[in-house]
Amino acid sequence: MGVEIERKFLLKNSDWKKQVDTVIHIQQGYLCSDKERTVRIRVSGERAWITIKGESIGMSRAEFEYEIPFEEGSSLIGLCEKPIIDKKRYIVKTNEVTWEIDEFAGLNSGLTIAEVELESEEKTFDLPDWLGKEVTGDPKYYNSSLIKNPFTKW
Amino acid sequence: MGVEIERKFLLKNSDWKKQVDTVIHIQQGYLCSDKERTVRIRVSGERAWITIKGESIGMSRAEFEYEIPFEEGSSLIGLCEKPIIDKKRYIVKTNEVTWEIDEFAGLNSGLTIAEVELESEEKTFDLPDWLGKEVTGDPKYYNSSLIKNPFTKW
Repeated sequence: MGVEIERKFLLKNSDWKKQVDTVIHIQQGYLCSDKERTVRIRVSGERAWITIKGESIGMSRAEFEYEIPFEEGSSLIGLCEKPIIDKKRYIVKTNEVTWEIDEFAGLNSGLTIAEVELESEEKTFDLPDWLGKEVTGDPKYYNSSLIKNPFTKW
Repeated sequence: MGVEIERKFLLKNSDWKKQVDTVIHIQQGYLCSDKERTVRIRVSGERAWITIKGESIGMSRAEFEYEIPFEEGSSLIGLCEKPIIDKKRYIVKTNEVTWEIDEFAGLNSGLTIAEVELESEEKTFDLPDWLGKEVTGDPKYYNSSLIKNPFTKW
């Protein structure tokens, strides 16, 4: 078990695209998307994971993650609540931290979110110019909310 | 992934107790107890598992099970929907099959269910004299239902 501490931001423009290190394709679904707990199946490349998260308290929430066989991950995606989240994740490294910038497809097309994982809630770092409004803790932007209320319907 | 094929029965009397092979204590909770899918955390002895099951079709349902570290299993039990199922499982071996007889505690005290896992829905075997009514497929007896509507409230 770990505790996940993260901050989330919208993007002001696409200047971050010049700094992209790697890009991966992610498909993920939720077996459970309650406020109190989520159970996520994620498939990316040839790998798959099951991830359980507790309720968010500020920037933090309990997180348990287990890698599972890829074929089983693909079958489990089929058991998930619909729709499935489909997104491209761009990795952007700055001096201090690593940004994961998710560009959503399908019913969430048009939405892009930058996330950074931190070692502590107190950790400080410079915010790149391309970041927009901070949306940390706003339930509307949780991936588990985006299956119930996708961006194209906002 | 596997497909779980099982039949469930109530017990007519306690004659089965004379044939018990082993007994284990099980605590289990549900991160998700929907009709379409369940996500179960089980802790027994020094071991723990996460198990995902699909919707039941007749005697069968898809099942995915992963062993997880015991300490994480105990923490995950804390994230589950309340109440937690607490039961003693007695193993009774007959010539042809292995029976798992669950004696429930807590809010489900008084309920005892015998289950047998089969290789195929067509598998035949002699039913021991101590078996009562068959309850295969009756949602009321699912462990995931017994947290919402426990036996002592029937």
